[in-house]
Amino acid sequence: MAERLIVVGGDAAGMAAASQARRRRSRDDLEIIAFERGHFTSYSACGIPYWISGLVTDREQLVARSPATHREEFAIDVRLRHEVVGIDLVRREVVAQDLDGGGEVRERFDTLMYAAGAIPKKPDWARGDIAGVFGVQTLDDGSALRAWLDADPQPRRAIVVGGGYIGVEMAEALVRRGMSVTLVERDEQPMSTVDPDMARLVTEAMHGLGVTIRTGVRVTGLSEHDGRVSEVVTDDGPIPTDLVVLGLGVAPNTALADAAGLPLGPTGGIRVDRRMRVTGMPGVWAAGDCVETLHRVSGMPVHVPLGTHANKQGRVAGINIGGGYATFAGVIGTAVTKVCDLEVGRTGLRERDAEAAGFEFVSVIAESTNRAGYYPGARPMTVKLIAERPSGRLLGAQIVGWTEAAKRIDTLAVALWNNMTVDEMTALDLGYAPPYAPVWDPVLVAARKAVDALAR
Amino acid sequence: MAERLIVVGGDAAGMAAASQARRRRSRDDLEIIAFERGHFTSYSACGIPYWISGLVTDREQLVARSPATHREEFAIDVRLRHEVVGIDLVRREVVAQDLDGGGEVRERFDTLMYAAGAIPKKPDWARGDIAGVFGVQTLDDGSALRAWLDADPQPRRAIVVGGGYIGVEMAEALVRRGMSVTLVERDEQPMSTVDPDMARLVTEAMHGLGVTIRTGVRVTGLSEHDGRVSEVVTDDGPIPTDLVVLGLGVAPNTALADAAGLPLGPTGGIRVDRRMRVTGMPGVWAAGDCVETLHRVSGMPVHVPLGTHANKQGRVAGINIGGGYATFAGVIGTAVTKVCDLEVGRTGLRERDAEAAGFEFVSVIAESTNRAGYYPGARPMTVKLIAERPSGRLLGAQIVGWTEAAKRIDTLAVALWNNMTVDEMTALDLGYAPPYAPVWDPVLVAARKAVDALAR
Repeated sequence: MAERLIVVGGDAAGMAAASQARRRRSRDDLEIIAFERGHFTSYSACGIPYWISGLVTDREQLVARSPATHREEFAIDVRLRHEVVGIDLVRREVVAQDLDGGGEVRERFDTLMYAAGAIPKKPDWARGDIAGVFGVQTLDDGSALRAWLDADPQPRRAIVVGGGYIGVEMAEALVRRGMSVTLVERDEQPMSTVDPDMARLVTEAMHGLGVTIRTGVRVTGLSEHDGRVSEVVTDDGPIPTDLVVLGLGVAPNTALADAAGLPLGPTGGIRVDRRMRVTGMPGVWAAGDCVETLHRVSGMPVHVPLGTHANKQGRVAGINIGGGYATFAGVIGTAVTKVCDLEVGRTGLRERDAEAAGFEFVSVIAESTNRAGYYPGARPMTVKLIAERPSGRLLGAQIVGWTEAAKRIDTLAVALWNNMTVDEMTALDLGYAPPYAPVWDPVLVAARKAVDALAR
Repeated sequence: MAERLIVVGGDAAGMAAASQARRRRSRDDLEIIAFERGHFTSYSACGIPYWISGLVTDREQLVARSPATHREEFAIDVRLRHEVVGIDLVRREVVAQDLDGGGEVRERFDTLMYAAGAIPKKPDWARGDIAGVFGVQTLDDGSALRAWLDADPQPRRAIVVGGGYIGVEMAEALVRRGMSVTLVERDEQPMSTVDPDMARLVTEAMHGLGVTIRTGVRVTGLSEHDGRVSEVVTDDGPIPTDLVVLGLGVAPNTALADAAGLPLGPTGGIRVDRRMRVTGMPGVWAAGDCVETLHRVSGMPVHVPLGTHANKQGRVAGINIGGGYATFAGVIGTAVTKVCDLEVGRTGLRERDAEAAGFEFVSVIAESTNRAGYYPGARPMTVKLIAERPSGRLLGAQIVGWTEAAKRIDTLAVALWNNMTVDEMTALDLGYAPPYAPVWDPVLVAARKAVDALAR
């Protein structure tokens, strides 16, 4: 009899693992069943804001691989709308509810791949069942929001609570749809994924876009009218609205894992080893937004829910399940986002992270341009570097600019990955031509400035 | 009496050295005289094609620092239109001709900075004094070409000989001005700065731009009419034209250095040590397009005339002349260019370079997109990687794409700089968001493909 792999969660991590395992082991050798509570597999959750805004016209475009593809090309028994509700590690079986057909199924496994993803953080005030309150974590969430936006009468006002990546992207998406949008942020400014001096540039861009930003405001409740949300109640008074988007971040979806006895780490994510094996649990693997991972710079466990890590981790798990050898090397916190025309990139540690990790450091901000100053379309570009003192080792970097800026963070990410010092970085042989960079690339300008700061 | 530094050549390398030396040593301690045979200092030669095309409207925009700035802010005695014609290392003096005023000046030096740049390669057929034949190496060259283009009657037809960076950029510039442009290339295709399989994409783009490309054609002479060029004579027949641009590359401008006894290396460039000191010549420094430098991947000396290196090398020399300590770490051959909307980047070794250096290698070409496939404006992007076998160490990379492609070569350049293997590269934490990359960044897709190729 073939061994059986059961995959809990049919998105990036789970299906990457399943397809990698299949590449190495035939269906006669390994049977694969994947349970997914939603209607989709392997889709781009990061693309949801662009579908909401209308930039992406068709939901199906966000689906990288359909269930049919998984079934036909990879011989994976994908069971949509089946939510796993119990895992028994002793009997080696899972119990899943058929959300549409009703009833339960029970399946044994030899190997378990836990990839249940993340769930939007819901404070107490959002836990009721008032209509018009949306997370944007899954494609089903996105579908529900789209339906609400297209309903009659059309909502005109939106409140986004929380100004992280998803909050900022959703605020822009809703403004693009012509809505009146208010972003409510508890802290002094949104975009705390970068340091405050860099976040200020993002805040200005959002103002320019027409988003109303209410900072230092804490949401305490919701009011409803006929079962639909009508107001967000805050410590600074109520704000009327026709819908609420939760942009408070996500937490690892681990209730089921925890109940089954899988170990959780300090971040709340499942603890895995370098091969994505759940620590101390033979035959049990986990990957994606539900696990915690090593931050290579701080040396600490972190929870970084991001499709690119989910895919890489799922692939690593799948190679190992398939009998190969692969490890996940950890993350350095690289991320990019777009706010209107403003581009934002970050990698490594922010100042507060560097402090928390115990580093001494200098930080510098260098102003430059994306192209040679005389070349048409040259726009300002701001690069911030954080470097350990006295070693000069790069600890973190942030970029804000207007076109061709964000992805330059990759240059800094690879330098950081390789433990380069800012002094070594000044020597880097980077591409130079007037349409692409000044003769001193913005990255080099910043590195030189950091070297000067270290010498002081 | 103050020591005296004499700088031969007032462009990027020479003036970077002079200003760095000045930062560290006051005018009472170090007198600095810079001789420049042209009319300008510290300008962007790389910007000339964009001034020719009209994209850059004003020649002065290309000047990073005027002679007045050098004189007033840096107390550098800049002498324009003075060509150094003799260097006497024993008597420690230079002889310069005043090209406008006539006569010679003779100045002693304690320290010499040789930064005479490069000169366009001129085959025998181009050595006459037929009007209408142009190099585009200096701003004075550019000015002469602009004057020719604006003369009455306006030239309508142009021939660019040689399809390297400057040839390709000039062909585009002249097409943008509405001219009928023929590019004559001796080899099978232009853009031999990348491998033929990647160069083909560039050739197609140039066809699309309306450039006539004549490959496998060797120029043997020029015909003239009333002292003006009227035809380029080739082994495939004559081609009528109103002007000729030489895009055959440049050679280190070392006649003067050679005569003075400065050592030249196998590339024809001046030999310098890591601090940019001319090998075996106390108190004599050189930097920029006239020197040869270490290629970090091949380990061989190379001549890479490029503003970014000239600036870095000049800065290194100046820091050392000023009493500080700095070294130039060598190059890895990173370069980017733009052909219409097509973007081209390269770093490290091409296949032919890897062969010449004695490496065994695999090479792979991966097709991907610059953005998530569903995001508006997603365009194809081709990444080629060359990796040593069996180690997997990255040896070279090339990118061709349509928007937001070329500068991604920096990501690969930093990986190459740090001796990463393609296997290590698959783990890199690069920025991901739908407007900037698919969930597997094109760089990662290529690295994975290279890993697969190495396993075969």
